[in-house]
Amino acid sequence: MKRYGMVTRLKPGGYENYKKLHADIWPDVLWMIEHCNIRNYSIYYREGLLFSYFEYVGDDFEKDMAVMAADETTQRWWKACTPDFDPYVPGEYWAPMEELFHLD
Amino acid sequence: MKRYGMVTRLKPGGYENYKKLHADIWPDVLWMIEHCNIRNYSIYYREGLLFSYFEYVGDDFEKDMAVMAADETTQRWWKACTPDFDPYVPGEYWAPMEELFHLD
Repeated sequence: MKRYGMVTRLKPGGYENYKKLHADIWPDVLWMIEHCNIRNYSIYYREGLLFSYFEYVGDDFEKDMAVMAADETTQRWWKACTPDFDPYVPGEYWAPMEELFHLD
Repeated sequence: MKRYGMVTRLKPGGYENYKKLHADIWPDVLWMIEHCNIRNYSIYYREGLLFSYFEYVGDDFEKDMAVMAADETTQRWWKACTPDFDPYVPGEYWAPMEELFHLD
């Protein structure tokens, strides 16, 4: 298992739409996330920042992410979510972070 | 079990010290974290931001956090870490975030 932490930011006013979407995430999007070996996935918000944490239980992360990116429903989902994004790191919708500490 | 996500920020130049401290965290600090029912605890960094994720497995979070805050070694640890902090939310070293999504 490998842990991932990622960061992005929402534009002012983007919170309500993002929260509403994630309170009722499309079942096919959820299915694809699980199919692509993502587990224990959480998204947190505060003062414009979004942070995601998840655990990857497969053996080829790049391949699984390519499968997810090729899925039409997931593409529609991203189109619904990302107009509100104002990436913390320019050019990266979700920017991977460096793990500085872990305790099991 | 309850999940927590928190955010803070480091001052420019604070990264090296913070990383070095967390690559070799004091054993008594680790012991106290576990004693206070924190599990699966990770800290991530990028572009000045720090994000922490952990799971609380006790039944009185406020009480356990008070036990941790009263521990002298933990207090010395925080003194070593926090001079580099530039909180994302003024006045809160680690500011709790809102969970917008979770998938087991």
